Amino acid sequence: MDESNNLSKSVIFPKGKRITNDHFIGAVWLEMLVANDSTFLCPIGNVTFEPGARNNWHTHPGGQILLVTGGKGYYQEEGKPVRMLQEGDVVKIRPDVKHWHGSAPDSWFTHIAISTNPQRGEAIWLEPVTDEVYNGNTL
Amino acid sequence: MDESNNLSKSVIFPKGKRITNDHFIGAVWLEMLVANDSTFLCPIGNVTFEPGARNNWHTHPGGQILLVTGGKGYYQEEGKPVRMLQEGDVVKIRPDVKHWHGSAPDSWFTHIAISTNPQRGEAIWLEPVTDEVYNGNTL
Repeated sequence: MDESNNLSKSVIFPKGKRITNDHFIGAVWLEMLVANDSTFLCPIGNVTFEPGARNNWHTHPGGQILLVTGGKGYYQEEGKPVRMLQEGDVVKIRPDVKHWHGSAPDSWFTHIAISTNPQRGEAIWLEPVTDEVYNGNTL
Repeated sequence: MDESNNLSKSVIFPKGKRITNDHFIGAVWLEMLVANDSTFLCPIGNVTFEPGARNNWHTHPGGQILLVTGGKGYYQEEGKPVRMLQEGDVVKIRPDVKHWHGSAPDSWFTHIAISTNPQRGEAIWLEPVTDEVYNGNTL
């Protein structure tokens, strides 16, 4: 794969390390820009997805905000149509809304993820986004 | 001034409108990416400074986080040396710490500003950053 034109080095903020847990399909990298702490209550990560990568369906008890810095991606809430994302887009994910996000099939994708009200608890991870669901969004 | 190579269109996020209040020296633009609300408690603005522009000394009762997306800038806390800022830098401003930020004399500067714990109140604005203080940082 020619990565030179596909955000393989992330955008502006460091790409970080590849995520090794089971909450993702495909390769995804995370660099924490701000740790979770009791002073700021504002953990911030920079997340980079290879083409076709996405996280499982999940919810955030306190919500999350995404700031898209590069590439092309998808965001979908359960029961709603997919939303196409690109550089400069902002996604406000309300508490407890089941959703997933990831890259388009033919593009890397990078966003900043800001966890809001983190004192309400960690993300709750659910089932994977199947190829059928994911590919349905590419039509 | 040739703005074409100086981030005059901001970086990634919209440049927004010029700020017209008295808390700044020089031209500064603001686009709110996320409004302050009781669900997310996470107002986010994109701020762009023309060369030499800076805000007055101020404090945030709940703190603030800056994510630098482009250009060259300065950040200074009272009684500390100036910190030079560039693309990819992150600044964690603790509650009630007196500080200012702005662009370098020869560069535009853009950062995302995330207000943390906004329920603690608005920024408290203090005196301007004099040319003497500002220029002292350029030596």
